[in-house]
Amino acid sequence: MQPYELTWNEVQPGVWKTTIGRPEPLTPLSVLGIKPRTEALRQMPEAAFPLAEASSEGSSRRALLRVPLTPEEKLYGLGLHFMRMNHRGRTRYLRVNSDPKQDTGETHAPVPFIVSDRGYGVLIDTSRIVTVYCGSSMKEKETAPEQAIDRNNDRSRWKATPVSETMEWLLPAEGADVYVFGGSTPLEVVRRYNLFNGGGTLPPRWGLGFWHRVPTLYSGDQVKEEALEFRRRGFPCDVIGLEPGWHSKSYPVTYEWNKERFPEPAAFVKEMADEGFRINLWEHPYVSPEAAVYEPLRPLSGTYSVWAGLAPDYTLEEARNIYQRLHREAHVSIGVSGYKLDECDGSELTNNSWMFPAHAEFPSGADGEQMRQLYGLLFQRMTAQLYENDNQRTYGLVRASGTGASNLPYVLYSDLYDHRQFVRALCNASFSGLLWTPEVRKAASAEDWVRRMQSVCFSPMAMLNAWGDGTKPWSFPEVEHIVRHYIRLRMRLLPYLYTAFARYYEDGTPPFRAMPLAGSGYSSGAEKGQAQEKKLDTVEAAYGGTRKREWDDQFLVGDDLLVAPLFAGETESDVILPEGRWYGLETGEAFEGGSVVRVAPGLEHIPVFVRDGAILPMTAAADHAPKPGEQVPLILCHFGQSGGEAHLYDDDGRTQEYREGRRIWRKAVVKQGADGNWTGELSSHDAAFPSTFGEVEWRFGLTQLPSF
Amino acid sequence: MQPYELTWNEVQPGVWKTTIGRPEPLTPLSVLGIKPRTEALRQMPEAAFPLAEASSEGSSRRALLRVPLTPEEKLYGLGLHFMRMNHRGRTRYLRVNSDPKQDTGETHAPVPFIVSDRGYGVLIDTSRIVTVYCGSSMKEKETAPEQAIDRNNDRSRWKATPVSETMEWLLPAEGADVYVFGGSTPLEVVRRYNLFNGGGTLPPRWGLGFWHRVPTLYSGDQVKEEALEFRRRGFPCDVIGLEPGWHSKSYPVTYEWNKERFPEPAAFVKEMADEGFRINLWEHPYVSPEAAVYEPLRPLSGTYSVWAGLAPDYTLEEARNIYQRLHREAHVSIGVSGYKLDECDGSELTNNSWMFPAHAEFPSGADGEQMRQLYGLLFQRMTAQLYENDNQRTYGLVRASGTGASNLPYVLYSDLYDHRQFVRALCNASFSGLLWTPEVRKAASAEDWVRRMQSVCFSPMAMLNAWGDGTKPWSFPEVEHIVRHYIRLRMRLLPYLYTAFARYYEDGTPPFRAMPLAGSGYSSGAEKGQAQEKKLDTVEAAYGGTRKREWDDQFLVGDDLLVAPLFAGETESDVILPEGRWYGLETGEAFEGGSVVRVAPGLEHIPVFVRDGAILPMTAAADHAPKPGEQVPLILCHFGQSGGEAHLYDDDGRTQEYREGRRIWRKAVVKQGADGNWTGELSSHDAAFPSTFGEVEWRFGLTQLPSF
Repeated sequence: MQPYELTWNEVQPGVWKTTIGRPEPLTPLSVLGIKPRTEALRQMPEAAFPLAEASSEGSSRRALLRVPLTPEEKLYGLGLHFMRMNHRGRTRYLRVNSDPKQDTGETHAPVPFIVSDRGYGVLIDTSRIVTVYCGSSMKEKETAPEQAIDRNNDRSRWKATPVSETMEWLLPAEGADVYVFGGSTPLEVVRRYNLFNGGGTLPPRWGLGFWHRVPTLYSGDQVKEEALEFRRRGFPCDVIGLEPGWHSKSYPVTYEWNKERFPEPAAFVKEMADEGFRINLWEHPYVSPEAAVYEPLRPLSGTYSVWAGLAPDYTLEEARNIYQRLHREAHVSIGVSGYKLDECDGSELTNNSWMFPAHAEFPSGADGEQMRQLYGLLFQRMTAQLYENDNQRTYGLVRASGTGASNLPYVLYSDLYDHRQFVRALCNASFSGLLWTPEVRKAASAEDWVRRMQSVCFSPMAMLNAWGDGTKPWSFPEVEHIVRHYIRLRMRLLPYLYTAFARYYEDGTPPFRAMPLAGSGYSSGAEKGQAQEKKLDTVEAAYGGTRKREWDDQFLVGDDLLVAPLFAGETESDVILPEGRWYGLETGEAFEGGSVVRVAPGLEHIPVFVRDGAILPMTAAADHAPKPGEQVPLILCHFGQSGGEAHLYDDDGRTQEYREGRRIWRKAVVKQGADGNWTGELSSHDAAFPSTFGEVEWRFGLTQLPSF
Repeated sequence: MQPYELTWNEVQPGVWKTTIGRPEPLTPLSVLGIKPRTEALRQMPEAAFPLAEASSEGSSRRALLRVPLTPEEKLYGLGLHFMRMNHRGRTRYLRVNSDPKQDTGETHAPVPFIVSDRGYGVLIDTSRIVTVYCGSSMKEKETAPEQAIDRNNDRSRWKATPVSETMEWLLPAEGADVYVFGGSTPLEVVRRYNLFNGGGTLPPRWGLGFWHRVPTLYSGDQVKEEALEFRRRGFPCDVIGLEPGWHSKSYPVTYEWNKERFPEPAAFVKEMADEGFRINLWEHPYVSPEAAVYEPLRPLSGTYSVWAGLAPDYTLEEARNIYQRLHREAHVSIGVSGYKLDECDGSELTNNSWMFPAHAEFPSGADGEQMRQLYGLLFQRMTAQLYENDNQRTYGLVRASGTGASNLPYVLYSDLYDHRQFVRALCNASFSGLLWTPEVRKAASAEDWVRRMQSVCFSPMAMLNAWGDGTKPWSFPEVEHIVRHYIRLRMRLLPYLYTAFARYYEDGTPPFRAMPLAGSGYSSGAEKGQAQEKKLDTVEAAYGGTRKREWDDQFLVGDDLLVAPLFAGETESDVILPEGRWYGLETGEAFEGGSVVRVAPGLEHIPVFVRDGAILPMTAAADHAPKPGEQVPLILCHFGQSGGEAHLYDDDGRTQEYREGRRIWRKAVVKQGADGNWTGELSSHDAAFPSTFGEVEWRFGLTQLPSF
């Protein structure tokens, strides 16, 4: 390989770009047409260029970027990962894969963007499969003799996976653009990445309500019946998802309604809307020969079929137009709220049968390797545009994503189902501009059911996905009351959640954040339990080694809530709290932060902590998010012994007009008078558009959430 | 991609070669310096060129070979695979990987050589990672509309993994040489492949005895003590393997003896030899800075270290000379019998920490991707040469192998441990010129212990690998007698096993063969049990699908024995027998072949079947294989009601002189006279060298193996 000269240009405030080798034109940022939020970037603290010592080399086969690491440096991100949070010392093979059952780096959403706890980020903008050696490769020249350790006679020091002080990015192509993001903390780096990609997404208010997906082959009448059962039982629900069966044909799909099950789609969608339900439609990329769009799309498709359907080349505007026209007419125009974009990832386990091969060729000149890495992004972009052009918002599900996705209104999901991995994925998503739902499908026990439901109610999408199991929130009668309580609590927290998402859009702060993004006061040094020496086992662990537990099972929601889910089988758990005083949101127990605390709240509660001085904007529990024009009460809950400030975001909750400034940030201030009495002030609403909130109620000095 | 013209030349009898694109010079066949056994190939039945319709295309990134398939065609081989035997409908990513825990095609020993049941084989000679689409990719142009099936309304016909009628070979390089092997049966194709690669390997006689590997850090005295315990308890053993700890340093290694544990290596090896034990040494590729060869090898090594050791470039003669000189002086010259070549594979799970990265560069110009694919082959070749040059034979273990390995005296092993997968791997190895041992390490129960021990005694290497568990053959006292019985039975079968290996060398017939290589009379059409409809499960099997069981848990040993291991938890199993009459070797039960039979032999027995008319050359059980000059009795066991013929191979059992014809095939014939009496004739031995066999004993008309 030949060395490449690296010249860095600041292309946005705190964002630098260089080019190594000969970049290929088709990249995630190019297909997304990213528009950085320059103004918001300018308002961030200044950052100096962090990567003076990076170097690069390459050949016609590959390009390599090398970045020096410090001994204790931690590395986060790289997309949606189930197995670990800190990638230091591991190799990550960033290919899209729907079956990421091993800790190799393959994932539904690979993002070659890494965040260092030293305060910088690196992104390679490529549609090729990057391998990142996060200190897992060691140059012979840089190896010191004393690093060679005798496994037999020095077991305590010997490591199966030695860690080096260089990070290497291997690109199987002639080159690419590389971006570096500055920042004094990992959070600043992530905010810059998100703002560079257009800011975080702001869902419609209804998107933050409860979601339920009905079984496949349900007819319109069955859907209505099941939806009304939610109302009868007092379970809030805003969105009903239709699974395969609403299409006239699926696997491959037509995108057309099945006339038997849905004789009058428009009437069906309207009746559901009148009851406060929005409809989300499952689909996948592969076009059935029986679809009206088959013939027009055929010449615009790849050279390989999937499930005997077309795999269209949606990097072509003409193909996008055909797809969008059909979706606009058949779905969006009658009020369908969005999509679940399935199977745009592909799996090796299933031998590519739901993915075209790497050598497939597309009319645009892209090959199958590139198209596979981009497919999830292309579908998200196409469908998002449909709603943008209609001055609406959408919020949906997607099984594959990648670089630059923060402004796309989609939440990732998986067919995997490990609860711990699901929570870890929620944490990891926050480093990479991604959202993730730990969806609930079924449970091994009432306990497992409750723990999963509690987690999902504190996630970007609170969803029961019953497509195959036919479960309902009340499927475990003995704990039905707990599940109802948490779904209703989510509804009460809507103003707080919605405000957190608004901040995601405006300054790039993820609404759900892993602990390394908690900001100051989080002592990442504290270990979770003792590092466990893996007992040598000739079958399970032939190389032994030690495994440190990470703080990857707890996260912040907004700035003032910390959620630490429990998992079936656990009665207590250790939680690390940032500095300051915290209260058990529902237990009232007080904790001193900056330390590790142990909690044992019982099955009734998920451990949630609220910050002293926090003001949570809440509302009354409702069956669904406020409809257009509807006003709801605002209940401002102040916690603890200190005064505080908070911001409340408001807009119409459903159009694109917030992007043009038709939105307001209201400031809430709580003070304690000399007499010890609390007073609260809330700045007024903007007359330019109706407020979501009617009467305003204050609660002061709470240590525990009251019922309302 | 541009089309390539394919011109096929017959380079050996029944073997055709073409070149696609621009081949790279460094390939498995080139590093092995393969010498085809032209004379033996010429003696095979003629074969016509089978692949008239193959086509190829390529670009600077990749080359593609396309081969049409018939609807029912089955595809076998591609190396050592644990998960399935028939690859039809799957995609195989043929990368070396020591953790092949998913069904992706990664394996310890990838071999881009496939065998069709229609009677042809295809090989790509490359050191790059080939992906083979075994009918798992479907060209859009070749897709018929009726192949699109609605999953919801046509569940019985819908398949999660549709199967196409094209096989595609994807090469991530500009080109390679492609070989096609003809034959009227899969067995003829495999024989051609093996003969093309120099024929199968012929181990020394002692290599077919029992192997035991002692725990790490054992001293010479401890090794001797443990070895003698085998003699005291009447457990045969020929080879003792030393694990890490015999080196002065290991992980990385020095290849030098540890002076504390082995103060006098030469004396130690000699004393063990006097007791009838040969010594096998564990090693791995990475050179410790404390090794004497470190400085000389350093300039001949790759740009990345592994465990802080050197990764030498053994494609360079100078590097091979350094390695071989040291091994000759320190090991071979004092009587060490061979090696266990560990960790020449590398794993993704362990993030390459025991493998250099793909972008490593080597002095020869090879990159890490190529060197990783070749490393196992290079070590096998280097060490085999050491013994060839010394007119000795070796037999050892290796964890990574590949193309063209049939003549290398090595057996593959793995850190994985599923008993069924181990037996399947034994079957699959036979399609690819590989040998495999289902080594025993430990067991969950006495039953598991017995079933594993029974299997390993009918494998290319009967080994207990106690490096980490310290187990002994008598570790489960309640079943000690069963284990002893099978180890002794293996010793009694040595003349039969040795003859089967001699045939592997001379005509390429694998000594252990999967059922598709059973030759005529095996009705591959018969299904094993009912195809199982996988119940749709949103966690375990979101795509449902059906799974057919394969006949991948039984195999032939030579021509006359069929072994069908049982697995812990099973009390009975279905076995498919080739046509003709068969007998339960130890039960005497008679079966009509050409059909599926059910057996339930109890824990005391592994189902083994012997062919009617077979003549098994056996001997008396001994503690170890005959020493030089020692003669053993020959017991010719004739089974059943028909007369028969058999061949008995003999040579000095330990030198290379058999390659120059210093060996003999003796013919045994059994006839039944008019009086109903059996007579047997055995052709005489060659006076040119001493016979292994003293007195000859005949047993006629057996239905069950007698005790002797």
